[in-house]
Amino acid sequence: MNFEIIHKDGNARLGQITTQRGVINTPAFMPVGTNAAVKAMGPEEMKGLGADIILSNTYHLFLRPGHKVIKEVGGLHKFMNWDGPILTDSGGFQVFSLSPLRNIKNEGVEFRSHIDGSLHFLTPELVMEIQGSLGSDIAMIFDECTPYPATKEYALNSLKLTSKWAKRCLDARNEAQALFGIVQGGMYKDLRKQSADELIAMDFDGYALGGLSVGEPKELMYEMINYSTSLLPEQKPHYLMGIGDLMDVLEAVATGIDMFDCVMPTRNARNGTLFTSRGRVSIKREEFKKDSSPLDPDCDCYTCRNYSKSYLRHLYMSKEILSMRLHTTHNLHFFMEFFRKMREAIGNEEFEKFRKEWTPVLQKNFN
Amino acid sequence: MNFEIIHKDGNARLGQITTQRGVINTPAFMPVGTNAAVKAMGPEEMKGLGADIILSNTYHLFLRPGHKVIKEVGGLHKFMNWDGPILTDSGGFQVFSLSPLRNIKNEGVEFRSHIDGSLHFLTPELVMEIQGSLGSDIAMIFDECTPYPATKEYALNSLKLTSKWAKRCLDARNEAQALFGIVQGGMYKDLRKQSADELIAMDFDGYALGGLSVGEPKELMYEMINYSTSLLPEQKPHYLMGIGDLMDVLEAVATGIDMFDCVMPTRNARNGTLFTSRGRVSIKREEFKKDSSPLDPDCDCYTCRNYSKSYLRHLYMSKEILSMRLHTTHNLHFFMEFFRKMREAIGNEEFEKFRKEWTPVLQKNFN
Repeated sequence: MNFEIIHKDGNARLGQITTQRGVINTPAFMPVGTNAAVKAMGPEEMKGLGADIILSNTYHLFLRPGHKVIKEVGGLHKFMNWDGPILTDSGGFQVFSLSPLRNIKNEGVEFRSHIDGSLHFLTPELVMEIQGSLGSDIAMIFDECTPYPATKEYALNSLKLTSKWAKRCLDARNEAQALFGIVQGGMYKDLRKQSADELIAMDFDGYALGGLSVGEPKELMYEMINYSTSLLPEQKPHYLMGIGDLMDVLEAVATGIDMFDCVMPTRNARNGTLFTSRGRVSIKREEFKKDSSPLDPDCDCYTCRNYSKSYLRHLYMSKEILSMRLHTTHNLHFFMEFFRKMREAIGNEEFEKFRKEWTPVLQKNFN
Repeated sequence: MNFEIIHKDGNARLGQITTQRGVINTPAFMPVGTNAAVKAMGPEEMKGLGADIILSNTYHLFLRPGHKVIKEVGGLHKFMNWDGPILTDSGGFQVFSLSPLRNIKNEGVEFRSHIDGSLHFLTPELVMEIQGSLGSDIAMIFDECTPYPATKEYALNSLKLTSKWAKRCLDARNEAQALFGIVQGGMYKDLRKQSADELIAMDFDGYALGGLSVGEPKELMYEMINYSTSLLPEQKPHYLMGIGDLMDVLEAVATGIDMFDCVMPTRNARNGTLFTSRGRVSIKREEFKKDSSPLDPDCDCYTCRNYSKSYLRHLYMSKEILSMRLHTTHNLHFFMEFFRKMREAIGNEEFEKFRKEWTPVLQKNFN
């Protein structure tokens, strides 16, 4: 994997990550394909929407169908018919957010499957084995996601554990895969610095910020992002995990973040909540019943070019599968276009202009 | 609407129905788009699969979103972004099969919505108004679907009612729309004849057989299809309603049926039941967990060209929306290819050969 910064505009960076499976233009949004599929979407559609990379989940694929199954049938790319880059999350966050039980030990984490309640034990070595079996292009270290609020003592012990696991992941790494470290440290700047220093000493291919957007106030999150990003090596990709509120993305890109992932565009789409140039739309509203206009008159996505709000509302009310497809297409298009235009703006040294122009639009979508 | 018989092979007919919105090659399979969408599919995909026409439902669209809504936003074709021909069923069968209450009067049928229990009253005139508002290319008369078993007295009264309603539909017909009569008469040949005679005297654009596959033994159904089809005018399209078991289709085409519709390929797809050249497949079976081969090695549909049984099983077990898409694509492709090859065989006077070749395959799929 190679990372090149093409242009800087303030701290915002226009870049390219080159992998064996293709180029990722940064700042990049990585649509989430939890179970080896971006919900409701096919791989050609994801290409058409401009996705350079998708994210998939170690936790989910370990539980179902099992990484050994995917390895045996030729790896995740072949399995899901996606030949572009894939980043796999390590499962640290999912164990934290999805499992009904989480028992953290030095060796690893015991947890229960959210699917069938079965008991499992993930270690850094196993997480690397899983990601190796999947054959993703970018793997993440196994981390402990520090909850919020957490005492300084808890956050310190947590980051120390993440650092130890990071070293074990490094020792067990797969040569064919890039490996990113994950900076923890809760909401304590000195701990964020300690975490970043320990990880930077191990020389990962990229660095992620974890344990953010876990319940803390926005201002605190922004402060942590700003501070933590400033600690990261300039020449490595910076990845802010799990954050997709585009107001937050703007803040984060301004500090030098290059990569994002979030289920927000896809999940909201399925719930009938749509992002548009005029603000957020709940498609089920009665007022759309006879509305023959497109969801967003300024949008040129497949959905807006071909269907009316009246039809979209009808499909949603009728629980038609096509509803989820058309809504997901629109929301992902909104996100991908936002990122595309943001990259263009950084390249033209117009990031601040872009930020000013988009802020009122985003405020109407993400409040 | 114009119907041309291009070639006959025994009683099997190769034909073309020409409508203002395009040509329908017959024998034709009409995929079902109940709620103004073929479940899980987009209109371009339906074109790609070779669908010349789709069917949609008066009953469902009357209840939701309402035919007046669809009329106001420009008609059903524009609403659902499908510019090919559409046939709308009249609601007679849905009132019979879906409503928790059905109170048949001379004037029409009182019934309760299966969605919210609200009370409605459909008359032949209203059914024609609805189909006119939808703007379908082929409308069906409002009929009473005679249940099975039914006494001869019931079946006689029922067919008389259908004939009266047929006349009222004819009087209320929309000029821009073809209108098909529906032959009833239960399992009584003389009543089938009476029904056919009464409808033929009214000179419809095409004739359907209704009230079949409602619980009667197969042999009886075949006997009724064979006899009833022989009563229909040669130069008009013959439509066997709601039947899609391809064994039944073979029998029916042999007697001179030209049009079919059925939810079987789409519904079975969503349930993980797939039709293949090697027989019916239940994708959830454990044996497919690590099976890297395609669902059907002899199939060139999008699903079989790009995905393994292992992946399809995984998507199905994970309840991914993409599962329904890939399965529906495959099953519809199986049906459309069957019909395409059947038309070719009729054109080549090889229908009997086709029937012999396909019978063992169909037996493994439809038993």
